[in-house]
Amino acid sequence: MRRLAIDRAKRLLFGSFLSSSQSSLAPGPSSSCFPFSPFSSEAAMSLSKFPPITVETINPKVKKCEYAVRGEIVSHAQRLQQELQTKPGSHPFEEILYCNIGNPQALGQQPITFFREVLALCNYPALLDRDETHALFSSDAIAKAWEILDLIPDRATGAYSHSQGIKGLREAIAVGIAERDGFPAKADDIFLTDGASPAVHMMMQLLIRSEEDGILCPIPQYPLYSASIALHGGCLVPYYLDEAKGWGLEIFELKKQLQAARTQNICVRALVVINPGNPTGQVLSEENQKEIVEFCRNEGLVLLADEVYQENIYADNKKFNSFKKISRSMGYSGDDLSLVSFQSVSKGYYGECGKRGGYMEVTGLSPDVKEQIYKVASVNLCSNISGQILASLVMNPPKVGDESYESYIAERDEILSSLARRAKALEDAFNSLEGVTCNKAEGAMYLFPRLHLPQKAIKAAEAVKTAPDAYYAHRLLDATGIVVVPGSGFGQVPGTWHIRSTILPQEDKIPAILSRLKAFHEAFMDEFRD
Amino acid sequence: MRRLAIDRAKRLLFGSFLSSSQSSLAPGPSSSCFPFSPFSSEAAMSLSKFPPITVETINPKVKKCEYAVRGEIVSHAQRLQQELQTKPGSHPFEEILYCNIGNPQALGQQPITFFREVLALCNYPALLDRDETHALFSSDAIAKAWEILDLIPDRATGAYSHSQGIKGLREAIAVGIAERDGFPAKADDIFLTDGASPAVHMMMQLLIRSEEDGILCPIPQYPLYSASIALHGGCLVPYYLDEAKGWGLEIFELKKQLQAARTQNICVRALVVINPGNPTGQVLSEENQKEIVEFCRNEGLVLLADEVYQENIYADNKKFNSFKKISRSMGYSGDDLSLVSFQSVSKGYYGECGKRGGYMEVTGLSPDVKEQIYKVASVNLCSNISGQILASLVMNPPKVGDESYESYIAERDEILSSLARRAKALEDAFNSLEGVTCNKAEGAMYLFPRLHLPQKAIKAAEAVKTAPDAYYAHRLLDATGIVVVPGSGFGQVPGTWHIRSTILPQEDKIPAILSRLKAFHEAFMDEFRD
Repeated sequence: MRRLAIDRAKRLLFGSFLSSSQSSLAPGPSSSCFPFSPFSSEAAMSLSKFPPITVETINPKVKKCEYAVRGEIVSHAQRLQQELQTKPGSHPFEEILYCNIGNPQALGQQPITFFREVLALCNYPALLDRDETHALFSSDAIAKAWEILDLIPDRATGAYSHSQGIKGLREAIAVGIAERDGFPAKADDIFLTDGASPAVHMMMQLLIRSEEDGILCPIPQYPLYSASIALHGGCLVPYYLDEAKGWGLEIFELKKQLQAARTQNICVRALVVINPGNPTGQVLSEENQKEIVEFCRNEGLVLLADEVYQENIYADNKKFNSFKKISRSMGYSGDDLSLVSFQSVSKGYYGECGKRGGYMEVTGLSPDVKEQIYKVASVNLCSNISGQILASLVMNPPKVGDESYESYIAERDEILSSLARRAKALEDAFNSLEGVTCNKAEGAMYLFPRLHLPQKAIKAAEAVKTAPDAYYAHRLLDATGIVVVPGSGFGQVPGTWHIRSTILPQEDKIPAILSRLKAFHEAFMDEFRD
Repeated sequence: MRRLAIDRAKRLLFGSFLSSSQSSLAPGPSSSCFPFSPFSSEAAMSLSKFPPITVETINPKVKKCEYAVRGEIVSHAQRLQQELQTKPGSHPFEEILYCNIGNPQALGQQPITFFREVLALCNYPALLDRDETHALFSSDAIAKAWEILDLIPDRATGAYSHSQGIKGLREAIAVGIAERDGFPAKADDIFLTDGASPAVHMMMQLLIRSEEDGILCPIPQYPLYSASIALHGGCLVPYYLDEAKGWGLEIFELKKQLQAARTQNICVRALVVINPGNPTGQVLSEENQKEIVEFCRNEGLVLLADEVYQENIYADNKKFNSFKKISRSMGYSGDDLSLVSFQSVSKGYYGECGKRGGYMEVTGLSPDVKEQIYKVASVNLCSNISGQILASLVMNPPKVGDESYESYIAERDEILSSLARRAKALEDAFNSLEGVTCNKAEGAMYLFPRLHLPQKAIKAAEAVKTAPDAYYAHRLLDATGIVVVPGSGFGQVPGTWHIRSTILPQEDKIPAILSRLKAFHEAFMDEFRD
């Protein structure tokens, strides 16, 4: 009887599948999802109790996933912060200093005025019809708001947009990319997302089929990649950056690790390159980038280019070049290379983390693969419109002659030059510490100093079942209120120990931070020096 | 030699794993992810070319996933719209009318003024220091903006927030939930998200381990559920709503389908209930909800309550009750029932789809399971702050005595009463059509009329390899420009055919729509009547 029901259901369902989407109702390889015919005469059997959801019974991929920059040390810092509020003076410091994450405005960086003017006007367009508005907003912000609203169907900033983002905004971003690179960009290649993270997840979801699929990632890496690969059940294939060469990316290392992975039947699908580097801060040379492009091209790897720090360059002799520009300058088109470039409004001089804006530019993937990406994007309908607007603004900031141009340039340059000064001050401070070596932060927002820890300290850490770098970071936090992330959260050459610190504390606070840091480190070494 | 390298790497890595997050660098069950030691002396072998990414080689779960409300018929509508722009008069209608998706502001619904005032002020707080602002903004919007900014550390609306959302905003939402239900709510139970969809994905990601894990979903269902289950590789276990009983949810049907699934060794983990219903528009009775709570409690199922239409009730004899209120009124606490309630700023009378705001309230899951949810949330850092602010506003709208109260109530009630009128007009129109029956839209934003199609029409559809309901929807679009979604995108009893239409076109357009609809349907029936 049930057999019949199954056949009937399958036959009829098949009928209704044709060019429809009901097939989505039988997901998973198991066809056992659809033997269910409605309202049959079978009597429902009495059912027994089943156990509730526990950590032991959740998706093991979720359990396996880790995200160090918001991990255990941050929870510990939050506890200390509450204690400081409830019991002032309960710790040897007055405030917690969050150097664990690139969150500039949380540490006092001010937003770019022009961007916020435009966002406010787009959020409440009624302002545009009022005379008082001209006293409160710059004329080019008002003009830009009109321009943007006219790009939005019915000027409805409260409506879902196209799932790739508002077409007019994507066209504006394409213009910005073309001006940056000197090579054309297409609105159809751009997917606007709530920050860069969802874009990275989308690509991992597209590429990873099983734990036999590998993604080449730098070590050290930004934990978004290890977390996303874990969540999607893939295999992170590490390639090690060479700390001795300023965190250099060596092609022979890429080839060696790719070969080792393939020897173990891991199908490596993509290469992640973070440029400027996170947590390592290096800026790749044009020559190096060309080698990487050739490597991906020869090996049929998708190049996943994390370029969210493209505006954060501090070394005079370094310049950001997008991988799109490099590959096009080599004469390669989308036919030669599959390339995805990630950009975000959270970094750069804008640092608008809370707005969750970003995009990925997808080139060199076939239209039918891009349709699959669009489909995944459409399941979440669209990214937030304010974030979409902001993404178009950071790629098209005020131009010479605009009323806001001078003030915009002043705000931008002050942020960037201050970041460069802070990077140098922290780098020098780390290098002045006994047993600490720190490469230059050529770009991005971080330093990743190496801790040459005494054996005594390593033993003390092992005694409390903690990695030595995590032990150091905890001691630093408890003594100074400074929150840094242990290198083990990013990956490091086994047996070496690092911490990642952002360069984001405001300049007026840097001297106090450095003296706290030095005092702690000296005491730590005095306690553990072999 | 490599064997040695592997052992060395593993040993050292294991050392650095202790209480660190480096384990995330070896995701997936395969331990083969980490035999890679850096800079060994092995020479890199020369490597051959590998094929690029194709639809055949992407993650099959992505391929399987379907999302009908933005599916093929919508792409076709977008093509027609472009043709209308390039060649006016090229079709028998002047505009495309998108009734495929609940996107009110895309069809002319205006946002609630107070909400937009507050968002604008929070986006550009400098306005709060200017005298002109008092001429442009209501005094309670200014007060609310100050209140919200004071809830945000350093008033930094451009900073990443706590990964669950800004604590003060979650506390405000908890107050709103408590006022709605008459039972307490906790900020720690609330996870703010970019609309409700990411929250649903998070829960599916947590619960689904393999295709042997099942989620009970209503048929017809909102395709987000089938899409998310497909993307996470699970099994959708359908339970059929009874169209003859106003899309009634029958407990015997739940029990029968759960039993059938368990008989096939599918581990059913959760029950999805959409109330008010999408696409079916029914509002559950308190009695029915109590039965559902008992069922989940007895069977150890997580109750996933999609309550995003809680403000959209049109039937005088119906009232929305949250499942939290129902379960608490039965004397059950979190110890008795695992319950997740989804809410969004995209629906209700606010309809702020583009802001991507929403939350889930998670009760009855252990703290360590909630920690895992927090971890997944933290990988995307946080939801957008404007959406977080808006979510707190819709759960705490202006109160009696506030300057904006009168205008807020007027805006809200005009939207809701107009929606009720539009629902009735469309319902009557569908029921007036030959061979069409349509249940009442007691709530939500949709009608799901059944098409009793002539055999000739079904054969015509099969001749072009199309489901009969998709065939009807395409003919309707080509003849009238009205976009509806075939019932097969939501699931329906095999052999029955439906379409889903929103009730969202503005009232002044309804008469024209109805006459176009009737004229098309009569011609269609004349063409195919048996």
